[in-house]
Amino acid sequence: MEQIGAERPGFISLSQGIPSLPMDQRIVTELIPCIKNNLVDQYTHPQGTESLRRLISEYLSLDGSSYGPHEILVTAGAMEGLSSVFHALFEAGDEILILTPTYASFFNNAHAARLKIQQIPLIATGWKLPFNALERAITKKTRAILLCNPNNPTGSVYSKKDLGKVADIAQRHGLYCIIDEVYDEIYFSRMPIFHLSSDASLKETVITIKSFSKNFSMSGWRIGYIVGSEEVIRRILPFHDSLVNCAPAVSQKAAEIALKNASGILPHVKRIYEKKRLLTERLLRKLSSHLDVVSPQGTYYFFPRIKGCSDSLAFCLDLAKKVGLAVVPGSAFGHGGEGHIRICFGRPDTFIEEGIEKLSVYLQTYA
Amino acid sequence: MEQIGAERPGFISLSQGIPSLPMDQRIVTELIPCIKNNLVDQYTHPQGTESLRRLISEYLSLDGSSYGPHEILVTAGAMEGLSSVFHALFEAGDEILILTPTYASFFNNAHAARLKIQQIPLIATGWKLPFNALERAITKKTRAILLCNPNNPTGSVYSKKDLGKVADIAQRHGLYCIIDEVYDEIYFSRMPIFHLSSDASLKETVITIKSFSKNFSMSGWRIGYIVGSEEVIRRILPFHDSLVNCAPAVSQKAAEIALKNASGILPHVKRIYEKKRLLTERLLRKLSSHLDVVSPQGTYYFFPRIKGCSDSLAFCLDLAKKVGLAVVPGSAFGHGGEGHIRICFGRPDTFIEEGIEKLSVYLQTYA
Repeated sequence: MEQIGAERPGFISLSQGIPSLPMDQRIVTELIPCIKNNLVDQYTHPQGTESLRRLISEYLSLDGSSYGPHEILVTAGAMEGLSSVFHALFEAGDEILILTPTYASFFNNAHAARLKIQQIPLIATGWKLPFNALERAITKKTRAILLCNPNNPTGSVYSKKDLGKVADIAQRHGLYCIIDEVYDEIYFSRMPIFHLSSDASLKETVITIKSFSKNFSMSGWRIGYIVGSEEVIRRILPFHDSLVNCAPAVSQKAAEIALKNASGILPHVKRIYEKKRLLTERLLRKLSSHLDVVSPQGTYYFFPRIKGCSDSLAFCLDLAKKVGLAVVPGSAFGHGGEGHIRICFGRPDTFIEEGIEKLSVYLQTYA
Repeated sequence: MEQIGAERPGFISLSQGIPSLPMDQRIVTELIPCIKNNLVDQYTHPQGTESLRRLISEYLSLDGSSYGPHEILVTAGAMEGLSSVFHALFEAGDEILILTPTYASFFNNAHAARLKIQQIPLIATGWKLPFNALERAITKKTRAILLCNPNNPTGSVYSKKDLGKVADIAQRHGLYCIIDEVYDEIYFSRMPIFHLSSDASLKETVITIKSFSKNFSMSGWRIGYIVGSEEVIRRILPFHDSLVNCAPAVSQKAAEIALKNASGILPHVKRIYEKKRLLTERLLRKLSSHLDVVSPQGTYYFFPRIKGCSDSLAFCLDLAKKVGLAVVPGSAFGHGGEGHIRICFGRPDTFIEEGIEKLSVYLQTYA
């Protein structure tokens, strides 16, 4: 979409999920002396530095999760983490259940690991979890259930009770429950999102994938981590090691500083996205004759349904060509996404305003 | 080895191939304003920034190689590059010929991609390339020949003529010739090493894996690249994208500055390793009643044969326990490595001196 539209003057992209915020200056300030003193030039331990893993362990403990540094593996971003999980724990041909619509890279990643994907669509009304369909889809070759919370692209946040039910299904069938929580500090309810990692009885079942990219506006730094049982981490480590050796040392140091300053940084980031969400929602609601708009509970995405649209790819291609706005077609996120578009509001306010104005102009001529 | 020995006071490691040199201060100085101004916080294009790929293209052209920015893919280190090549170009069960002894991660990486490995031992006298054995080993399932030049751990550098013969075998049989050149600026002859990438007629055959880790003392920054035909790069890009999204933006920027200053940095680094090689060789030659020492032509490794040793793993375990010195057993590098040990001289001079003194003490009680 971006390539198609990029040639138009005034082209706006609300497509890729890049946070527009800069990395916090507190991180920059403390990081620079480490670079000047050449403290980040060498490989670290493949699992990540002990100091970063200790800080992650403390950060996780804030909601009662109890994972020691040996149960944490630092990765070059969340997707390297997911790749390492897929390759290390599963065999080619193993099946994985993915709750859709969801992050498109899950599919690419599973394909790369030669896994068989079974898509289980969320219940469209409120993007609820389809427990019966999920359990019915389990076969002898199923190894894991994969979901994203808060969910990209729907913006929905699953409740403690619902997550517990998914984990229970996984546990009863001897599957892993892999949960991607890369947007977990970007939520708009009063209550923070519930982490399955805080339930100690699920340690052998749950594998959590985390990242600094979105919560700390550090997507360029490629830094994330896997949280799991000691056995799971031990099995993943050799694959991760052969893949990237270790996460970038400079990014590990930046992540340490981010965590030490988390209580200062995260509420600020959350407030900014909250404002952007309100702005975006106000503008989108004006288009409600064309759009079904559901307010996201987390992430920085709206995922409205376009009334009368059954080919979101064609819609987005035409939108990019005719008015120079890039958004992502819902079909890219798997079953259940068709008819929707994903609008990223993690961008500068002027982009949001101009982008939605373009959408408005386009919709006036649509259907 | 490092874990076994680490508890001993005075423990020395000459095992892992970490360069002891700091990243050049010219890189640090120019990088810091980019971090301060938040220029490296966001994802880059998955293939790497255009500006870095342009500079790599210019750098490659110094020996006549002609690869444009579209024929270069920036990776999170050389091993991510090799993984992406393996996964993107080959199927599970495909065969790959690896010239051994060589870098142990090649095996892990090929296993992770579910490839079948055929090890082809180098001719022990002078670590020459075994052309006949190589060609005889090719089957219908063979997809590539993989070698490392300069070779880790042997320190040997292959001639233009010999490399041409390997590439010719690959070309005649429709295989890729994958060459890992991560030590290519660390050589001790007057002539620089020959790059197969400089032969334009081999562009469809040769895939080169490069890195900033060793040449520019940047192992912690996780930054390397793949050089190949446009078609090869196009096929690898989606896998790389799903794996790490992009190489760290901050490391891409550091790599840019490194290349702009290459003519100042590289001769300096080379001189330092040359001195360390002379120091190490002088000390090892004193042990020639126990060791067959061959002077390396490149890399920062010696790979002496221990006279009378047929179990290098047992030798190294005992060495770590008895005198507190870690080196790598030759058997770790595949067929043909048994009976040897790898000594890294990319370490501080005092480590080299104390380490080899420990080796000397140990050898006096050996066999």
